[in-house]
Amino acid sequence: MNKEVKDMLPKVKLFIATCLILMSAVVCYASDEAITQISTIDALMAGVYDGVTTLGELRKNGDFGTGTLDRLDGELILLDGVFYQVTVDGAVAKPDLSTKTPFAAVTFFTADRSLKLKAGSTFREFTDSTEKWFPSRNIFYAVKMKGTFRSVKTRSVPSQKKPYRPLDEIAKTQPVFEFKNVTGTVVGFWCPPFFKGIGIPGYHLHFITSDKKAGGHILDFVAGDVTAEFDDTRELFLILPDDNDFDKVDLQKDRSAELKAVEK
Amino acid sequence: MNKEVKDMLPKVKLFIATCLILMSAVVCYASDEAITQISTIDALMAGVYDGVTTLGELRKNGDFGTGTLDRLDGELILLDGVFYQVTVDGAVAKPDLSTKTPFAAVTFFTADRSLKLKAGSTFREFTDSTEKWFPSRNIFYAVKMKGTFRSVKTRSVPSQKKPYRPLDEIAKTQPVFEFKNVTGTVVGFWCPPFFKGIGIPGYHLHFITSDKKAGGHILDFVAGDVTAEFDDTRELFLILPDDNDFDKVDLQKDRSAELKAVEK
Repeated sequence: MNKEVKDMLPKVKLFIATCLILMSAVVCYASDEAITQISTIDALMAGVYDGVTTLGELRKNGDFGTGTLDRLDGELILLDGVFYQVTVDGAVAKPDLSTKTPFAAVTFFTADRSLKLKAGSTFREFTDSTEKWFPSRNIFYAVKMKGTFRSVKTRSVPSQKKPYRPLDEIAKTQPVFEFKNVTGTVVGFWCPPFFKGIGIPGYHLHFITSDKKAGGHILDFVAGDVTAEFDDTRELFLILPDDNDFDKVDLQKDRSAELKAVEK
Repeated sequence: MNKEVKDMLPKVKLFIATCLILMSAVVCYASDEAITQISTIDALMAGVYDGVTTLGELRKNGDFGTGTLDRLDGELILLDGVFYQVTVDGAVAKPDLSTKTPFAAVTFFTADRSLKLKAGSTFREFTDSTEKWFPSRNIFYAVKMKGTFRSVKTRSVPSQKKPYRPLDEIAKTQPVFEFKNVTGTVVGFWCPPFFKGIGIPGYHLHFITSDKKAGGHILDFVAGDVTAEFDDTRELFLILPDDNDFDKVDLQKDRSAELKAVEK
């Protein structure tokens, strides 16, 4: 290497260092740890179904998550950076990254703790035991479960037309899918009770089979050979829709009862 | 420039381009528009007073905001990138950037709308008229008011020792300061009702005089010649404390009544 190149090296090194420092400063601001949520659950419950954020934009904030699609067109799953849409007929599509979502939550999943589910344990038993086991019920958890389930019961929702009806009305006639001895992945979140009205307190889980051909929003399950991983999360980035329907919707009403009906 | 250096240039350019792309991707993730909040108001109400985030870290996320300091040591104001601490005796200190806060909210303030206050109008009248005037009551607003007030009534809070008492108990004996014909700046936020439990619904305002010698948490005011500026905000970045007291505190209780008492 000649002298000119050698003289250049310190400058290049300084530039690299400056870049790294600047990048780490920005990363501090909103780390990969954060869960990013589009809109609020009560706005969705009230019928604010127009998509506002493209899946492409959403993927910048996570490789893992759940949600729904523009006009409530099915259940959304983001797993290992790939989006899956469980449509109302139970089929799985890969939505275009230009498709918009009216409600979703994503994060970059990294496991902080894990546990093996007791074979035969139900969704309710899993909920009760993990809520006691969590280091705190005042933080968020992303939840990934992999393995074989004795059964999984899911639902999807049909695409809507304006004027939109509230979600609890639509959920009354939702198609339900039952899987027996099925291998797949559960993708979802556990949110603290104080997140009521903004997000879904407790568990909200979606499911996709290992062959990526079926899935949906989980109503119930019985575990077979399943391991659950949890990503402890103390950062929540909420993005409210820049949308006329959102701006005008009544978010003062307590929609807990309707949400409970929808989640079952 | 010789051949070796010329050969090196494309690699350097590629590195610069990669850095810029990576940085812009991260910046997209959480824009300057966001309000960043440390902890939840209900945790503060319950006595989670240990500082968790340094003011230096906080300033990365905003140049404008409010909060309190480690062990509830006074009222915090961030204005034009400078922190002010109104201590319990009504004096104003410039806290060290290594000081930690247990609860704060900051943003980079850029006005989206403004209005001139009617001379003689009270805090209550300002609240009623602006809540009707807002484009939406479902989003956040940072609020900056500048001018001369006929009167401003503020309070501060005293530094606490463990075991910490709840905030509503401490507020019962808070020192109150009254200013007449005072020039200064109001710094604060308006949060939507659905933010209850996490933040303070409605207005939460702090005050600092133009000579930066007095201020506090605003209990009441009567406007003189005052202009209010509002920064419409649809992004909220919540950072929960990595703190044992926070992890264990009961956040299920409805503390609305206590909060109302504390804000008066």
